[in-house]
Amino acid sequence: MSDGAAPGAVMLDGPAFQDYYPDDLSQCYGCGRLNEHGLQIKTYWDGEETVTRYVPRPWHTAIPGYVYGGLIASLIDCHGTGTAAAAAYRAAGREMGSEPPYRFVTASLHVDFLRPTPLGVPLEVRGTIKSVAGRKVVVSATLSADGVACARGEVVAVEMPERMRASS
Amino acid sequence: MSDGAAPGAVMLDGPAFQDYYPDDLSQCYGCGRLNEHGLQIKTYWDGEETVTRYVPRPWHTAIPGYVYGGLIASLIDCHGTGTAAAAAYRAAGREMGSEPPYRFVTASLHVDFLRPTPLGVPLEVRGTIKSVAGRKVVVSATLSADGVACARGEVVAVEMPERMRASS
Repeated sequence: MSDGAAPGAVMLDGPAFQDYYPDDLSQCYGCGRLNEHGLQIKTYWDGEETVTRYVPRPWHTAIPGYVYGGLIASLIDCHGTGTAAAAAYRAAGREMGSEPPYRFVTASLHVDFLRPTPLGVPLEVRGTIKSVAGRKVVVSATLSADGVACARGEVVAVEMPERMRASS
Repeated sequence: MSDGAAPGAVMLDGPAFQDYYPDDLSQCYGCGRLNEHGLQIKTYWDGEETVTRYVPRPWHTAIPGYVYGGLIASLIDCHGTGTAAAAAYRAAGREMGSEPPYRFVTASLHVDFLRPTPLGVPLEVRGTIKSVAGRKVVVSATLSADGVACARGEVVAVEMPERMRASS
């Protein structure tokens, strides 16, 4: 890593959105804190925006030297659903983690790859909330490497149908 | 696995598109045969369509019991770039693997998640070539689980810029 950053998710101050997910909804490969094989990304508020930082592992490559697009899509996806949950709590005037939990799944994902994303530096996904309407939240996201925007994405997230929850 | 299928990529008869990629372009986390940490997906012609089969690993989960959307996006992504390469060879009347190699990268990726994708059964991605024009190939794809369409996607693939190739 050019700046010595350890691979994996970068933790910032305080609990992340994903730290509030109930245990049975914390298995996701992208963002579940209990999935030991997964990415375990962490997303936080930064004012009106949300931020996720992740340092890809050496094998998260596409063409050598560049980050795998599927990883970029995964980061934007889970950043989007996490942001959607946080936005829903905020819109409802509720504290994150209060019951019942908000948990969103992805209805659609779009990613435009603007330029090759270099491997070996921390990536930052910044999200903005485009809309919160009923059970649907739309999040737009920009993924940057060393401050240079490399991908832009949009996630349409919908509240998880209760029937999907095994414990329900 | 409900039908005894081993997790990972499913090989069909004959070499896959990805088996023709040169060694230095076979490192991709999604489709590189030399990335031992990766998915190593294999894509084949089936008439005018292309097909990739993959059995997710137990940790490729989103909500327990369902497949992680980032994996679905990854399968569609690499299925799309592999299909683009095969389509370019076919359009040029060239044998796959002949020099110089066609290798495509993703310009944009879109996935609509139609319904939750069950974990524990083989997934099949089927692609159709929407257009081949200059350096750009557009591929649409449907991902099914046990014959039920669970996601639809579109990949806009462009020929890899030669400057991305480390050996160039």
